[in-house]
Amino acid sequence: MRHSIATVCLSGTLEEKLRAAAGVGFDGVEVFENDLVASPLRPREIRALAEDLGLTIDLYQPFRDFEGVDDATLAANLRRAEAKFSLMVELGADTVLVCSNATASAIDDDARAAAQLRLLAEAAEGYGVRVAYEALAWGTRVSTYRRSWELVRRADHPSLGLCLDSFHILSRGDDPAGIRDIPGEKLFFLQLADAPRLSMDVLQWSRHHRCFPGQGGFDLAGFTGHVLAAGYTGPLSLEVFNDVFRAADPGRTAADARRSLTVLEDGLARRDAPPRGRPSVTLTRLPEPQTPRGFGFVEVAAAGETAAGIRSLLAALGFAHTRDHRSKPVQLWEHGPARVLLNAADPRLGHTWDGAASVTALGLVLDSPERSAARAERLCAPVLARRHDPSETPLRAVAAPDGTAVFLCPSGDGGEEPWLSDFSAPAVADVHPGGGPALTGIDHVGLHQPFAHFDEASLFYTALLGLSPGESTELASPEGLIRSRALAGADGGPRIALNVSLIGDGPRAGTAGGVQHIALACEDIIAVAEAAVAAGLRTLPVPDNYYDDLAARTDLPPHRREHMRRLNILHDREPDGGGEFLHFFTPLLDGHLFFEVVQRVEGYAGYGARNTPVRLAVHRTERAA
Amino acid sequence: MRHSIATVCLSGTLEEKLRAAAGVGFDGVEVFENDLVASPLRPREIRALAEDLGLTIDLYQPFRDFEGVDDATLAANLRRAEAKFSLMVELGADTVLVCSNATASAIDDDARAAAQLRLLAEAAEGYGVRVAYEALAWGTRVSTYRRSWELVRRADHPSLGLCLDSFHILSRGDDPAGIRDIPGEKLFFLQLADAPRLSMDVLQWSRHHRCFPGQGGFDLAGFTGHVLAAGYTGPLSLEVFNDVFRAADPGRTAADARRSLTVLEDGLARRDAPPRGRPSVTLTRLPEPQTPRGFGFVEVAAAGETAAGIRSLLAALGFAHTRDHRSKPVQLWEHGPARVLLNAADPRLGHTWDGAASVTALGLVLDSPERSAARAERLCAPVLARRHDPSETPLRAVAAPDGTAVFLCPSGDGGEEPWLSDFSAPAVADVHPGGGPALTGIDHVGLHQPFAHFDEASLFYTALLGLSPGESTELASPEGLIRSRALAGADGGPRIALNVSLIGDGPRAGTAGGVQHIALACEDIIAVAEAAVAAGLRTLPVPDNYYDDLAARTDLPPHRREHMRRLNILHDREPDGGGEFLHFFTPLLDGHLFFEVVQRVEGYAGYGARNTPVRLAVHRTERAA
Repeated sequence: MRHSIATVCLSGTLEEKLRAAAGVGFDGVEVFENDLVASPLRPREIRALAEDLGLTIDLYQPFRDFEGVDDATLAANLRRAEAKFSLMVELGADTVLVCSNATASAIDDDARAAAQLRLLAEAAEGYGVRVAYEALAWGTRVSTYRRSWELVRRADHPSLGLCLDSFHILSRGDDPAGIRDIPGEKLFFLQLADAPRLSMDVLQWSRHHRCFPGQGGFDLAGFTGHVLAAGYTGPLSLEVFNDVFRAADPGRTAADARRSLTVLEDGLARRDAPPRGRPSVTLTRLPEPQTPRGFGFVEVAAAGETAAGIRSLLAALGFAHTRDHRSKPVQLWEHGPARVLLNAADPRLGHTWDGAASVTALGLVLDSPERSAARAERLCAPVLARRHDPSETPLRAVAAPDGTAVFLCPSGDGGEEPWLSDFSAPAVADVHPGGGPALTGIDHVGLHQPFAHFDEASLFYTALLGLSPGESTELASPEGLIRSRALAGADGGPRIALNVSLIGDGPRAGTAGGVQHIALACEDIIAVAEAAVAAGLRTLPVPDNYYDDLAARTDLPPHRREHMRRLNILHDREPDGGGEFLHFFTPLLDGHLFFEVVQRVEGYAGYGARNTPVRLAVHRTERAA
Repeated sequence: MRHSIATVCLSGTLEEKLRAAAGVGFDGVEVFENDLVASPLRPREIRALAEDLGLTIDLYQPFRDFEGVDDATLAANLRRAEAKFSLMVELGADTVLVCSNATASAIDDDARAAAQLRLLAEAAEGYGVRVAYEALAWGTRVSTYRRSWELVRRADHPSLGLCLDSFHILSRGDDPAGIRDIPGEKLFFLQLADAPRLSMDVLQWSRHHRCFPGQGGFDLAGFTGHVLAAGYTGPLSLEVFNDVFRAADPGRTAADARRSLTVLEDGLARRDAPPRGRPSVTLTRLPEPQTPRGFGFVEVAAAGETAAGIRSLLAALGFAHTRDHRSKPVQLWEHGPARVLLNAADPRLGHTWDGAASVTALGLVLDSPERSAARAERLCAPVLARRHDPSETPLRAVAAPDGTAVFLCPSGDGGEEPWLSDFSAPAVADVHPGGGPALTGIDHVGLHQPFAHFDEASLFYTALLGLSPGESTELASPEGLIRSRALAGADGGPRIALNVSLIGDGPRAGTAGGVQHIALACEDIIAVAEAAVAAGLRTLPVPDNYYDDLAARTDLPPHRREHMRRLNILHDREPDGGGEFLHFFTPLLDGHLFFEVVQRVEGYAGYGARNTPVRLAVHRTERAA
């Protein structure tokens, strides 16, 4: 299918928007009138630029408050419309979006409105223009697709059809299945937008909080399936009003947008045939998604003293320094199945790592790295340069939206994973033998995201790795609220927690933001903590007030609480006596990185969010000290 | 009255919050439980710190979901409560906030709930603690103050009273007048929060969008008047959950908070006596607010070439360079009553001006500068150092929240304004004689605000200068949405437009943000524009597409449109044939400053907001070129 995007989705001038859309392979655009009005380019110049860029102009929008008016207003509206039709001829756009009248004075008279729409269509026909009539969710008289279809049916003119917008239909909770009853040739245009499920005024929700398909709470695949089943053959086109996208880099946003349609179309192609009829369009499938078996490794980069601190910390946690990379200053530390690569000085990845301690790469174990690499490429993921030494294992890596390198590692099929052969026994001096109570792997990784790209990262990881996003949680830090969303596989696989400052990367967000962490799993956290403390680890001090509160609100036996207090272990329990969670943290290393050790009891599925504000406050206190 | 603030209003650790509150003169605090739980300070240490800082701990909060429960839960809840009472004794807090049960399982049985609250009060009494019961707007069974009062009345225990929270009452649209019927001694605590009028889920509204009194849409003075009339004698205490304040500098936020209560109390003191009864507290009045007659001057600071550009621009607009400051590199430019001070190199104000062209000071003409200065001081406005040369006119100046210096200038009582005597005839070489079609003054000044301090600035200017805030408008710029609010006097006086990026001062917000402007008024904009262009002014080019759109949507005669097009004059009209607005802009100087010339016809009261996106796009295009 063809993919389009409305210029209002992107920041910048109209020219910048067109270039951004073309740059990521969109086929066409909807030109938003305000963008054209404010552009120094005349309609013919815009048309020429779009042609040069390989873009069609699929829609001119919006034309407002046309129908259901008195006769004097109708005359003025027709004059206004003809001016726009004439402009569209210059622009080379053959379809105009006409929104249902949202003024208080709109007249509740279907016959009048239909007759007026017919007059509009007759005028449009003379310019070779098609009118796509859309019910705004807040239209005064016409606010459902059923009623807009009723008017279009009644007006009965070949130049008049419908525009369907997923937001206007799904935000109202309307059942989109009825779309199947509309003849496909009357579906002139399809605008797609997702949105988080918010309980607020629908106009404000629409104007500020739309997002790309797969980033919100609507069933866009189901919706689009109905539209295709009806016989729609036009483009999948995004119309997303979003405060953050409006202010973000347009190239980045365009890539995010394009990816969302690629994923949507892939999802549609994978569905069983719709119960009635088949789409009359060809849907493009991507290579199958694949959930990794888990983390093969997590790589941390740190300079000088911080690297030394991480080595001490890993050693205290029982990690052994087992190997060194053959050609790079990278150490492999292992504790059972948990592997950490410590990269002491290698900015090879080219992303924004600037010397602050950071998680720079995730190694994910896949049955078929080739297939995931092919899928990643179709998801506009920048492929990172492979290692050049021909003797080394070729490892595919792609860059996630936040710059984290995602290595797609083949599994060892029971034997050693192939990438390990690039590591050999280390120089003896720096070896730590490891040991102590077992860690059982890497439980999750926490990655702080740049403000403008949180939803993009969420969609990227879920689409590439077959993970499911959990609910967003808001966490109170002493420097502002943090939004957190965990991505996890249905049956195991890696867990990734994405965090973002709620109000932007302002000057003060820098201190709350930018923090990343690695959470290690175990089955006996008391034993792990005791051994680690005995080996010199300083666990993050948890205030005594926390344990007083724990005593007040739980029935944990006093000796157990006291044990936890001594080791700075925090506690959570799922409601109604469900699973239990025990965890402790390390202090911040270099202000940006910490480790956590967690024990999940009886299938606890969360991340101890109720304790996160305590961790954040103590990290803040230590930073301030 | 005593003024308090909940620690949840401020960012930072508990210790930072207490220091910030004390730093601006609060009398007490509400300790938010989560802040205490996450603090390394034990309750006794918090008490000692507060005492050292001169703060009382007026409330411990919140205690949740106590009443309307089954007997097993009641026992656990009483145990939990006793632990908190015991903590409060250590903390030196004698009142606890108990919110109405918001769990789905809350039992709808007033007798049970009242009996349980009585048990709680009996337990509290043993610790010398008072229970202040509050109806949450989203409480499952108890969501109005009337019902919470009914339970408290029924429970009938001296240690049980009410907490009233303006948000929970006003957000529901409840009539607060009934508060007068509650005995004053049963009003244990008063929490104040304002909020913008939003149509959204009340819980989300409450948790993210509260603001300080005077910054939102509620009638806090009316509300508080009812509470005082009932005989409440406790503190005015702020409980404001706000995403922005949570991430802002706590000292700044505390000053803003304190100012809001000072203004609220002043407003209450100025009201007529309430119909029934008088407050049993003494209300502190500030010196009377005073609306300036207008702008005596606006000062612009600019370095080198930009200063030269501003001189050319002012000259082309018919300004005369009439005088120089006697001791500073400041030129006075005048065109009729419009005066611009051009400060070529003077960072004396000590605020963040860093060499980029900027509006650094507003000179406001007042009948009694002394009175406004005294009022400013009570509004926590930093007094700026007066000029030191004893021969110069003593001019009072205070710093607005964004750092702009506000000079409080005496009027000349018909003669010359006194501050002008600090300026003498200029060196001949640089004089421009001025002339041309008349400007009639400074219409308004547009000041971009730092993200976290928009509401603070709005409250500061309105409280100091007796201006009224208009509705907030959202403007689409190519770099994101901008929120704009104009402040104006009821009968003339200066107009100030405050702008702020909607999503924070992120890396990209810098380009849309930071822009300031001076709008000059005239009565014949065509003549002014023609003369200015003839004198070499380049007006900001307005796209031809704009005039095509203007033709489509208005009935302006073609020759008039063409005249406007040639001069880059934009047009707006109030709905229903009201006043008309004509204006043109200059290009950006130094990327941060521009001038505008406006003509208001027939009482047009706006600012041409519909044209602002065009101006923003052209400025962006010119910057990108």
